Amino acid sequence: MIYEKGSLLYEGKAKKIFSVFQSKEKKIDPAKIWIEYKDDMTAFNALKKDEIKGKGAINLEISSLLFCHLEKESCQRKLRIPTHRIQNWNAQVMIAHKLEMIPLEVVVRNVLAGSLAKKLGREEGALLSSPIVEFYLKDDLLGDPFLSSEQILSLEIAKELDLEKMKELVLQINLILKDLFKAVQIQLVDFKVEFGLNEKGDVVLGDEISPDCMRLWDAETKKRLDKDLFRRDLGDVKVGYEIVKDRLKKYFNELKEEGAG
Amino acid sequence: MIYEKGSLLYEGKAKKIFSVFQSKEKKIDPAKIWIEYKDDMTAFNALKKDEIKGKGAINLEISSLLFCHLEKESCQRKLRIPTHRIQNWNAQVMIAHKLEMIPLEVVVRNVLAGSLAKKLGREEGALLSSPIVEFYLKDDLLGDPFLSSEQILSLEIAKELDLEKMKELVLQINLILKDLFKAVQIQLVDFKVEFGLNEKGDVVLGDEISPDCMRLWDAETKKRLDKDLFRRDLGDVKVGYEIVKDRLKKYFNELKEEGAG
Repeated sequence: MIYEKGSLLYEGKAKKIFSVFQSKEKKIDPAKIWIEYKDDMTAFNALKKDEIKGKGAINLEISSLLFCHLEKESCQRKLRIPTHRIQNWNAQVMIAHKLEMIPLEVVVRNVLAGSLAKKLGREEGALLSSPIVEFYLKDDLLGDPFLSSEQILSLEIAKELDLEKMKELVLQINLILKDLFKAVQIQLVDFKVEFGLNEKGDVVLGDEISPDCMRLWDAETKKRLDKDLFRRDLGDVKVGYEIVKDRLKKYFNELKEEGAG
Repeated sequence: MIYEKGSLLYEGKAKKIFSVFQSKEKKIDPAKIWIEYKDDMTAFNALKKDEIKGKGAINLEISSLLFCHLEKESCQRKLRIPTHRIQNWNAQVMIAHKLEMIPLEVVVRNVLAGSLAKKLGREEGALLSSPIVEFYLKDDLLGDPFLSSEQILSLEIAKELDLEKMKELVLQINLILKDLFKAVQIQLVDFKVEFGLNEKGDVVLGDEISPDCMRLWDAETKKRLDKDLFRRDLGDVKVGYEIVKDRLKKYFNELKEEGAG
């Protein structure tokens, strides 16, 4: 299949979404999108900004590895995790299924950190007795407010079945990713994902999964390998992200060799 | 029973709590507290302050009427609502059972208003499809942050059974109060209560229920009869609170007469 970039549909803080033009059929494919991972880095609702050359490509590579791993791993479990990824087109572009996005950021926390530690006035780093799932309304103007399930349902921001499905999926994603990162000596502290509905109305994992939207600590040194490097000026962002990418690639390569041997 | 005021145990923004001295037995009664309703009025975490002469007495009278009504009404339903009130001692003092307070403010909303309307960037006044129960951590220094049930349980701020009981009780309280206020031409928009555990470990309604912690709108004119009069400088606070008190007293007096007749 030959894809060409169509018109800009949406520009976010870290990605640009375009329609997809299918050269063979000489028309727009309404079921697909062209996602360009940008090098822009923003934090605190875009009050802090920078450009990190190569960041987009690293995040695309990590996202692709994680999407593939989630699809493959979940196939062998009861609960399949469908993702929007179709294929990578080049180093900064992913072709994906177009979804009707649910306007919620879905967060899972394994360790107390970030906004939750701050709002409770507690130190970061305490292991939670069980993972916490949180929902934030995706609305920059309102500062992405934290919502309870009850608020979401009563205000009809999502349907009850979709909300339950998201909770189920995100906990499954957490189990799989926690194991994966543990295998590469990284602690999965927390992460954010977004879901959307496909044509059939199924809840599908969309957006990206990268160090831009996760907290990843080196298991031994507790060094940050994620966006907190940028938010808190803790070190070279690209170096941190590349450690994550390299460890994951090494792990998957070793798996392949084992499979082949 | 003769009670005397003991030593100050705790001073809040709207009330002072003292121990209770039983003159007959000449000793402190550790199971009871002496609650003085203050005339102090504060809002926005005490950034805005004033003194409204007589406010304490009005709130005590309204709280007592509502506590009595809740106990009486809930007796006839499946779910009893126990309250900490024992008796009013004078115009500004209530004697109550001492509880081990659960550090949560429990809010029920019937109509979109206040902080929820603000965080969603929506107008006040929309009727919610079903009442929303919310929990806020009682912590002035942290600004009483909003917490989900999952956060409360994972962080061990309350036990699961107590949390479920509070939800059950507060929805029952809402049903009874909504009916009561409707009968006196007032719309119960939202309210906040606090619970504690008695010696047996039962969840008991504590603190107060007054226009300081409710949104009460005149059913016809939508005029505010609650603390928003103070928060937003919408009119004479005392006049609003007295309307609530007078309508409730008239209603209960008429009920008594009917009962006697």
